[in-house]
Amino acid sequence: MGPRVSTAALADRLTGMIGARASTARGVLDQHGQSESYYRALPPDIVVFPETTAEVAEIIKLCAAASMPIVPFGAGTSLEGNAASVAGGVCFDFARMNKVLAVHDSDMDVVVQPGITRKQLNVELRSTGLFFPIDPGADASIGGMTSTRASGTMAVRYGTMKDNVMALEVVLADGRVIRTSKRARKSAAGYDLTRLFVGAEGTLGIITEITLKLHPVPQAISAAVCGFDTLHNAVDTALSVIQSAIPVARIELLDDVMMRGINAYAKFGYREAPTLFFEFHGSETAVAEQAEAAQAIATDHGGRGFEWAKAQEDRSRLWHARDNTLYAGLGLRPGARAVITDVCVPISRLAECLTETRRDADEHGFTAPIVGHVGDGNFHMLILVDPQRSEEIEGAKALQARMVARAVAMDGTCTGEHGIGLGKIAYLADELGEAVDVMRAIKTALDPNGLMNPGKIFAGGAHA
Amino acid sequence: MGPRVSTAALADRLTGMIGARASTARGVLDQHGQSESYYRALPPDIVVFPETTAEVAEIIKLCAAASMPIVPFGAGTSLEGNAASVAGGVCFDFARMNKVLAVHDSDMDVVVQPGITRKQLNVELRSTGLFFPIDPGADASIGGMTSTRASGTMAVRYGTMKDNVMALEVVLADGRVIRTSKRARKSAAGYDLTRLFVGAEGTLGIITEITLKLHPVPQAISAAVCGFDTLHNAVDTALSVIQSAIPVARIELLDDVMMRGINAYAKFGYREAPTLFFEFHGSETAVAEQAEAAQAIATDHGGRGFEWAKAQEDRSRLWHARDNTLYAGLGLRPGARAVITDVCVPISRLAECLTETRRDADEHGFTAPIVGHVGDGNFHMLILVDPQRSEEIEGAKALQARMVARAVAMDGTCTGEHGIGLGKIAYLADELGEAVDVMRAIKTALDPNGLMNPGKIFAGGAHA
Repeated sequence: MGPRVSTAALADRLTGMIGARASTARGVLDQHGQSESYYRALPPDIVVFPETTAEVAEIIKLCAAASMPIVPFGAGTSLEGNAASVAGGVCFDFARMNKVLAVHDSDMDVVVQPGITRKQLNVELRSTGLFFPIDPGADASIGGMTSTRASGTMAVRYGTMKDNVMALEVVLADGRVIRTSKRARKSAAGYDLTRLFVGAEGTLGIITEITLKLHPVPQAISAAVCGFDTLHNAVDTALSVIQSAIPVARIELLDDVMMRGINAYAKFGYREAPTLFFEFHGSETAVAEQAEAAQAIATDHGGRGFEWAKAQEDRSRLWHARDNTLYAGLGLRPGARAVITDVCVPISRLAECLTETRRDADEHGFTAPIVGHVGDGNFHMLILVDPQRSEEIEGAKALQARMVARAVAMDGTCTGEHGIGLGKIAYLADELGEAVDVMRAIKTALDPNGLMNPGKIFAGGAHA
Repeated sequence: MGPRVSTAALADRLTGMIGARASTARGVLDQHGQSESYYRALPPDIVVFPETTAEVAEIIKLCAAASMPIVPFGAGTSLEGNAASVAGGVCFDFARMNKVLAVHDSDMDVVVQPGITRKQLNVELRSTGLFFPIDPGADASIGGMTSTRASGTMAVRYGTMKDNVMALEVVLADGRVIRTSKRARKSAAGYDLTRLFVGAEGTLGIITEITLKLHPVPQAISAAVCGFDTLHNAVDTALSVIQSAIPVARIELLDDVMMRGINAYAKFGYREAPTLFFEFHGSETAVAEQAEAAQAIATDHGGRGFEWAKAQEDRSRLWHARDNTLYAGLGLRPGARAVITDVCVPISRLAECLTETRRDADEHGFTAPIVGHVGDGNFHMLILVDPQRSEEIEGAKALQARMVARAVAMDGTCTGEHGIGLGKIAYLADELGEAVDVMRAIKTALDPNGLMNPGKIFAGGAHA
């Protein structure tokens, strides 16, 4: 890395280029250093709000010449400090690059800029009969979801961002602009660069355009809630539904602690027991058949009080509560912050992993609700801590470390969908060993000066 | 690249290590230099038949020390010269690494060695109620299918190899062995190395173990055949089926020329018109509903003579004919070889692309049957040529070049599923421009001496 020019000099250049869309105002910097998780604030030196790919490329060239870190920022909803400015530098906020560039109805795809959020996108798609299903809970930006390989509640049916991103436009570390793929549904043309940038957390390049698969809005949808006496019974139900090839659209587990939070947050009156939330998509006939089969399986596993929500309004209320598990969870301990972590294991090991993790949290006295995308073997724990008490944070991190080690020992992963960011760098090495050296070699090849979102995924930058 | 030691010296070392499983016999070399396409023979200097990952790693270290090219070989069914030994070297034939290492029924996955073929795998899975759906026609090896990002007839429902490979064990150019992923259904843990090696055609490392997703054998299956008056009507039917969210398992187009070949090859009596082959998977109810909806759409587009094949025997006969389109096509011109090419376009452009390509072939006097995975926008043309007449081969290549240019101009790709190999190197650059430089940077980072399957994907090796 060459000598870093002064922040003031770069800020002047940027203001000359884009005026007030380059900012060094304290409030703006601080806002871009926060996250929804427990990490300390790590603000950038400058925030820019580009409007075009050409601007992004020009600013990246200036950053490269000035040896200034380059950090992309979407909606700020990531959970592992993925957009924190660890080494300062220039934060690229994509709020002004939030357009739908093209809807291809017949091909069922859409081209968008990275700053659009998933909910904004679905509003824009309303008249098309198509929708974008990936739902990580928060109203994240599509750019952020792409960069963290997000998934969420509907991945069990529609896949993750890996499966739904068809092509990307990316600005590289030296300002070159590439397209990773054409718009065909599949291709065997060389290395899969699309999948390389999906989940790279901005460490290889900055994404400026995303082509997404869309899906037809289902003719019929129904949803249901069902409580169980044990986590094991709830998970066994999910396992059996998946193995029966019922194409469930969502199958979410909320443990008893989380149900208590949901009841309080959304004024529901559910039994505070391990609970599955189901959703079925398809034709009227198919949905009815799927729902009946799933209910029979749940009943076999001791599921009680199946409640159906077929009306749009009832479903919205139900999933609104589910989408707000972060806030519902936080409500269980006023003033708390959450150490949030997710793991994913082969589904045959899920019941064991969940049960042991629940017991571990209880034994260490933590209020730690669990919510899981159980059809994929993925679950989250929100460990509620008093942010002023460092021993609590340390205890929570130790609990998290045991949870991750347990998942990896079961042939699972340290993160199903939040990414590595700052929080899971050490775990990545535990999980994949020398494969991380291959990742680092790719990082070095594409970003030799280590300026692209430094401090994420790898310890000590690309050269450590 | 350092000085190359003599082939004889390396062969001696290899024979010392694995005995007769290292061969320099002329017949063995020649057999590994052939392909099913029109490329001239490009045999290796030595063929090895490793039995373990450790052997693969040791042999790769010897090759690296001797600066000898390393070329992986599966079932020899690739179509773009993907396994040709362009620069001689050591060919790794995986015939003896063809075991199922673990079946995880509950998780619906399987761990295999690369040499097992897809049909062998499905025989081994018979008792599990699970199957591996990817069907490229030929009985290809799983290693080869992984390396070329194969797909085929069921990709429209079950995805391509990209979607069905969960994890890989790979031996790198320096003999290090890595695993790209754990066995969780999804992960956001760092760069997606699995997808990087899927489709890399052995140019980044040699795959020694593959973890694959499996799918439940459908409760019910039905298949149907339906003829149309024009290619356009057949394609519009496919488009409408996909847009209606009918989860069709297969939807294959065979043009009138190919139907003539099929009738002759398999003694069918179909009308020699553009024809769709359908298959539906699901519950009895779901299959009946899907089939009825598809038939209604086909009838709306002038489809005639819907023939159903519900019995296993009838379906097998039907798909056997479809799987053998290469041989059925070749039968149209005895003694001919086929210049086989595939492209994939956004489905809204498929009818136009197909119709123009058909007209182009006819105008230039070629017998060139077309078969397409039309649900994905992917189709193949087999241009039949007399291998002794170079002007025919040149004419076929020119026809292919126009077909590829047409597809790329429609935002499509130069290869939907065969890969780049030797045959599409120039087209890759036309399609993706500077993105190919990024691929090359990755190649150089992982294989600095350019020994891994040299001459494929990139012109003139990694350093050109």
